[in-house]
Amino acid sequence: MHKTDSSHAEAIPLAELQAIDAYWRACNYLAAGMIYLQDNPLLREPLEVRHLKKRLLGHWGASPGLSFMYVHMNRLINKYDLPAIFLAGPGHGAPGVLAPVYLEGTYSETYPDISQDERGMQGLFKQFSFPGGIGSHCTPELPGSIHEGGELGYSLSHATGAAFDNPDLICVVAVGDGEAETGPLATSWHSSKFLNPIRDGAVLPILHLNGYKINNPTLLSRIPHAELEALFRGYGWKPYFVEGDDPMDMHRSMAATMQACVEEIRTLQREARESGKAQRQIWPMIVLRTPKGWTCPGEVDGNKIEGFWRAHQVPLTMVHSNPEHLRILEQWLRSYRPEELFTQDGQLVPALQALAPQGERRMSASRHTNGGLLKRNLRMPDFREYALDVSRPATSSAMNTKPLGAMLRDIMRLNGHNFRVFGPDENTSNKLDAIYEVSKKLWLADYLPEDENGGELSPDGRVLEMLSEHTLEGWLEGYLLTGRHGFLATYEAFVHVIDSMVNQHAKWLTIAAKLPWRAPIASLNLLITSTVWRQDHNGFSHQDPGFLDLVVNKNPLVTRIYLPPDVNCLLSTADHCLRSHNNINVIVCDKQSHIQYLDMESAIAHCTKGLGIWRWASNDMGEEPDVVMVGCGDIPTKEALAATVLLREAFPLLKIRFINVVDLFRLSPERDHPHGLSDSDFDSLFTTDKPVIFNFHGYPWLIHRLAYRRKNHANLHVRGYVEHGNINTPLELAIDNRIDRFSLAIEVISRVPGLSVAGAHAKQRFLDQQIACRQYAHTYGIDDPAVSDWVWPYD
Amino acid sequence: MHKTDSSHAEAIPLAELQAIDAYWRACNYLAAGMIYLQDNPLLREPLEVRHLKKRLLGHWGASPGLSFMYVHMNRLINKYDLPAIFLAGPGHGAPGVLAPVYLEGTYSETYPDISQDERGMQGLFKQFSFPGGIGSHCTPELPGSIHEGGELGYSLSHATGAAFDNPDLICVVAVGDGEAETGPLATSWHSSKFLNPIRDGAVLPILHLNGYKINNPTLLSRIPHAELEALFRGYGWKPYFVEGDDPMDMHRSMAATMQACVEEIRTLQREARESGKAQRQIWPMIVLRTPKGWTCPGEVDGNKIEGFWRAHQVPLTMVHSNPEHLRILEQWLRSYRPEELFTQDGQLVPALQALAPQGERRMSASRHTNGGLLKRNLRMPDFREYALDVSRPATSSAMNTKPLGAMLRDIMRLNGHNFRVFGPDENTSNKLDAIYEVSKKLWLADYLPEDENGGELSPDGRVLEMLSEHTLEGWLEGYLLTGRHGFLATYEAFVHVIDSMVNQHAKWLTIAAKLPWRAPIASLNLLITSTVWRQDHNGFSHQDPGFLDLVVNKNPLVTRIYLPPDVNCLLSTADHCLRSHNNINVIVCDKQSHIQYLDMESAIAHCTKGLGIWRWASNDMGEEPDVVMVGCGDIPTKEALAATVLLREAFPLLKIRFINVVDLFRLSPERDHPHGLSDSDFDSLFTTDKPVIFNFHGYPWLIHRLAYRRKNHANLHVRGYVEHGNINTPLELAIDNRIDRFSLAIEVISRVPGLSVAGAHAKQRFLDQQIACRQYAHTYGIDDPAVSDWVWPYD
Repeated sequence: MHKTDSSHAEAIPLAELQAIDAYWRACNYLAAGMIYLQDNPLLREPLEVRHLKKRLLGHWGASPGLSFMYVHMNRLINKYDLPAIFLAGPGHGAPGVLAPVYLEGTYSETYPDISQDERGMQGLFKQFSFPGGIGSHCTPELPGSIHEGGELGYSLSHATGAAFDNPDLICVVAVGDGEAETGPLATSWHSSKFLNPIRDGAVLPILHLNGYKINNPTLLSRIPHAELEALFRGYGWKPYFVEGDDPMDMHRSMAATMQACVEEIRTLQREARESGKAQRQIWPMIVLRTPKGWTCPGEVDGNKIEGFWRAHQVPLTMVHSNPEHLRILEQWLRSYRPEELFTQDGQLVPALQALAPQGERRMSASRHTNGGLLKRNLRMPDFREYALDVSRPATSSAMNTKPLGAMLRDIMRLNGHNFRVFGPDENTSNKLDAIYEVSKKLWLADYLPEDENGGELSPDGRVLEMLSEHTLEGWLEGYLLTGRHGFLATYEAFVHVIDSMVNQHAKWLTIAAKLPWRAPIASLNLLITSTVWRQDHNGFSHQDPGFLDLVVNKNPLVTRIYLPPDVNCLLSTADHCLRSHNNINVIVCDKQSHIQYLDMESAIAHCTKGLGIWRWASNDMGEEPDVVMVGCGDIPTKEALAATVLLREAFPLLKIRFINVVDLFRLSPERDHPHGLSDSDFDSLFTTDKPVIFNFHGYPWLIHRLAYRRKNHANLHVRGYVEHGNINTPLELAIDNRIDRFSLAIEVISRVPGLSVAGAHAKQRFLDQQIACRQYAHTYGIDDPAVSDWVWPYD
Repeated sequence: MHKTDSSHAEAIPLAELQAIDAYWRACNYLAAGMIYLQDNPLLREPLEVRHLKKRLLGHWGASPGLSFMYVHMNRLINKYDLPAIFLAGPGHGAPGVLAPVYLEGTYSETYPDISQDERGMQGLFKQFSFPGGIGSHCTPELPGSIHEGGELGYSLSHATGAAFDNPDLICVVAVGDGEAETGPLATSWHSSKFLNPIRDGAVLPILHLNGYKINNPTLLSRIPHAELEALFRGYGWKPYFVEGDDPMDMHRSMAATMQACVEEIRTLQREARESGKAQRQIWPMIVLRTPKGWTCPGEVDGNKIEGFWRAHQVPLTMVHSNPEHLRILEQWLRSYRPEELFTQDGQLVPALQALAPQGERRMSASRHTNGGLLKRNLRMPDFREYALDVSRPATSSAMNTKPLGAMLRDIMRLNGHNFRVFGPDENTSNKLDAIYEVSKKLWLADYLPEDENGGELSPDGRVLEMLSEHTLEGWLEGYLLTGRHGFLATYEAFVHVIDSMVNQHAKWLTIAAKLPWRAPIASLNLLITSTVWRQDHNGFSHQDPGFLDLVVNKNPLVTRIYLPPDVNCLLSTADHCLRSHNNINVIVCDKQSHIQYLDMESAIAHCTKGLGIWRWASNDMGEEPDVVMVGCGDIPTKEALAATVLLREAFPLLKIRFINVVDLFRLSPERDHPHGLSDSDFDSLFTTDKPVIFNFHGYPWLIHRLAYRRKNHANLHVRGYVEHGNINTPLELAIDNRIDRFSLAIEVISRVPGLSVAGAHAKQRFLDQQIACRQYAHTYGIDDPAVSDWVWPYD
């Protein structure tokens, strides 16, 4: 394989290419050193087993290619004084990024202990993928990283999110050909259709076609050239090809091609900006085909290594026991000629140092990659202005998410290029459409006449909608990581599509928060709506409230879960979340019309506490109650309230305390979560010995998981979704899962000592009412309004 | 838009096209009827409000297009006597599938109550998307469905899985242009590279470009034709275009194009089969561009409906209150001319009935869509033959998954075209590579000379590897749903990628199991390996045992979770899982070398019970112990055993009972899960008042979630992964999360009454040993062998 594409070549002086090659050799030397050496970092002595790490860990395969891209981008940063950042999709090749980051000085500035000398180099080598050291991916510890690349698939969407509203920035993103097989990556190529050439920066993807994954060829490396080219043209990019294995040929081709791409990007941007017309552009991208593990030994013991999957991790593994392999390793390391590259005391020679960009032009030192430094707090309207007038609790209804749409609209208005809203084509369905009054949906592709009436599309839109939760989440993460703010609303059942991404972001935030040099970034705000209880015609497949079970397992410093029961609580919660940082805020609130409980001042007080007794709904009058009824979530709260009314009518002397929970982690012990309630506070609210009937939005066991150490846990009876569902009216679904008022009232009757005998008659009446409700639904297709249009009957 | 591609047209008689159109009109009439009507199904009377459903639910948008494809495929089934099945990616358009399934009689055969007459038609209409009725997607209740299409993204991978090893079958799959934006769908186009033209059937994708999602245009409908064509050529397909809105033109074009595609498929297959050479083929696919909601009213009150997003769900919603809209609805329904289509008693007129295929050639009656009917049990080798010789417990080590690889190899050998193994390029890494002795990895794309040595590739391979968990899971589900068996092994942290798919499959199985006519299918067997505790160089991003938390929320009739601690337990568990049906079996077992506990007979006995006391590791000698130590999972069991040794050395009189748990759901109450242990059995194992130290593989709270109602729950102290991780040795990671022997021993000291004073010295020693272990790891990069090479010291 020697093919290179020189059609874009310009005459780049040989000396310059040789210097780039030397810089690249220095990178490769360091990358190999990280994997193998714990001593003798400059190979001053013949290599011996004692110089080697006892355990060889790390991925060599992608490293040389990553360094290759990095050093070539450096040339263009200097040439054009470009602001740029670098994302390594195959983050497993971290040595290939760590190396140039170290060589350009940023690493030592961040971690002075890893100095730019022999001792520092030895430290760099030793700590890599070493217990107590640093990871083998582009983790948060790596200056310049906003993308760990441990889990594959999100590099291109992260890069795109970083480019939004950064008109001068070029985000160079290495996409591994393994990663390219994942679904999230495969659809994220469409991201280019959402890059506005006037107000956004550019993404320059480099598909790294090194041919192999762990043990297999990659699909894209084994299809005909014409197919590969068609694929990227079809995705809407203009592909350039740089292919080969001879370093100098490849330097020549890569230098010319990257330069052509950068110039093309700048031309497209300039033309759009001069014309003022934002249109979709066919942006350039590069296919870089190199051998896997490029420059490592070609063949050992008759087994092909360079250019084959065997180069994926550690190319030579028997070096401790096989002297011949040790010799090959030494030969390999010396092939980079470290003596030419480093001074006697282990510094990069000055001629090479001069190749790196300076100061914040270094991709590793770009403030965009430490977005908290650039973060400006959102300018927030007063959320009270969107308040719903609730003169008496639980007597009127409204769509919970609609006023939030108005609030988001005004946040959008106030925050120019600092805020975006994301959604999988559901913002209207989710009743957030007020936002379109200020900002339409971004659309740069073709327009049709009918878009005029109801399309809500605009090339300047700041609402991003695509039917890929993966891409949206990736864009949002990239946007937040580079210092901006955002909001993503999505259907509850399908937020599971991004389980793994949210896991990874939580892990990133957990580590980043421990690094003093990383400034806090805006929180990831997820509104989970179209919830399990209102899937009237979508049925069983759309019923899954289990995302919360995933979130609670992540680090408590990061995770927050809120279930505001009504409009005013949602507004207060959203205001809090949008002002927070370094959190993952999950807000669960349905979009349909729901009964309203609290006026704004009560809502603020309630949300500030996170949970509390609703005096107006309780009749324990400050005394010890006979039973505690709890609602958590919109519909469960309504049903729990309706149950208290049924019970008060049937048992006028029964003392019921009503509690609503907004902030789920208040249920945790305070040692487990910063929002956890003290045991004494918990006991005084939930009592230590009275039955607690807890009506929960999600899977019921989650409440036990949070509260199992509380004194009164044995009396805690939780109701929630238990996977009973089909095409149901809301009330029927509630009955099937026993979160309805009748089931709750029956539960109370059987739990409160002394009630069960007296209550036998009431219990039968409630059972009859359940049957009647179901019959009504099966006859008319809707709930009996006499039951569903329930309001709180007392003053 | 009137463009059609007639380049493939052959002269299809007009009368035939007119008949197809009539059949299609009957479908459209029924589809609209399902959404609107509860009475007057044949429009014998003028339409009145009382004939309408009170609540209008369902999705019209995709329905006409789905019926269009269906009836055109029917023509070819008859013409060539083809076995075929139909998958509707946009399952929301179920009326468009329900309609032809009803018209060809299968629906009434399955549900005699919904007969083929006026009464049956009214029942069909009324029950659609109606409480107590059937869902609005292609749910399991729909004969002929193997793909619900509630969650979008998996249609093409399901279709491909169905085609594997069904050489005569054509799987027609409608891919929605909304669905096409999802990541899983975007990468699943590469599935064609895994279809062997000799032994596999064909997939005929029809991209339904109807232009809109819920409120937005679709990306693929708004890019230039050349881009669209390039995209599919790049993906490796040969796209045909059928575009327009005039029904007769479109019938002519679709008939010719589908015929061309079917003939091309048969030609490619015949050539490959005659030559005996299995090579990758460029298979045909169709881009069908029609208006959204095709044939509904074009414009109402100045708002465009047909061909715009407003046709997505119910095109006219004000029909109850707006007499003009009611009139438009009636006009629309009558535009299909039902009086020409149905007899007086509501049957399809005989001339049209003759268009449907007969018997099992009807796509709705294909046995492939009720795969349990075709399922043959696996021929299983005796798993005891792969047993590891374990003469004394916990004194030797082995890689847990390696013998399983040998067993899978022999299952592959014994089961010809009835079994496949799937993995995201990790089967070698996961030590299952023995399987390649019988079957290589399927590879139909280009070969290189180096593949000869170590490539393990073959065009006849039955191991499927691609770096997309989504695609693998989709293939496997399609394969199982059509009556075959399979096995998927994947990395623990990244099984979260398919959380949502597993959710959906669990829901499918839950409903399907309730339908007497659906025969049981083979279980979904997931081996979760490369687990949280052995991510030595991958670090924090690769540590997430939370998939189990997702699984436990699904229906207990479906879910099974096993954590075999060693080779022999894994073999016994896998044997059981591969023989089971209608379950989702999750097996958690790490791939690295681990200490071995049980000989085969003990393993069988232990796995059959699911959990039990290990007498050899206990010194309570049948008496009531002072403490119960539990291990669940490979490494947690080892550390718990090592802790018992530390404790027995320090406190020779302390009576410790050691329990190992394999079958996680044994911890559940028996009312909650079929595997649940009775309270009395649980109490006799775990005592009712002694401290229980439970060392768990996953997040510790999961154990509380299962066991919170057990009598001794207050004394249950669970250790597990708590999100403390980075680059760690196994022992260091255990210490950080406090599942190590020292932490456990310290816990026992503080929990057993009377020990804490006497144990202060021991406790300090254990703390010192923890520090020493960490120091060793940070110095040498590996665990101190004196600690990690621990073996059970007693006879």
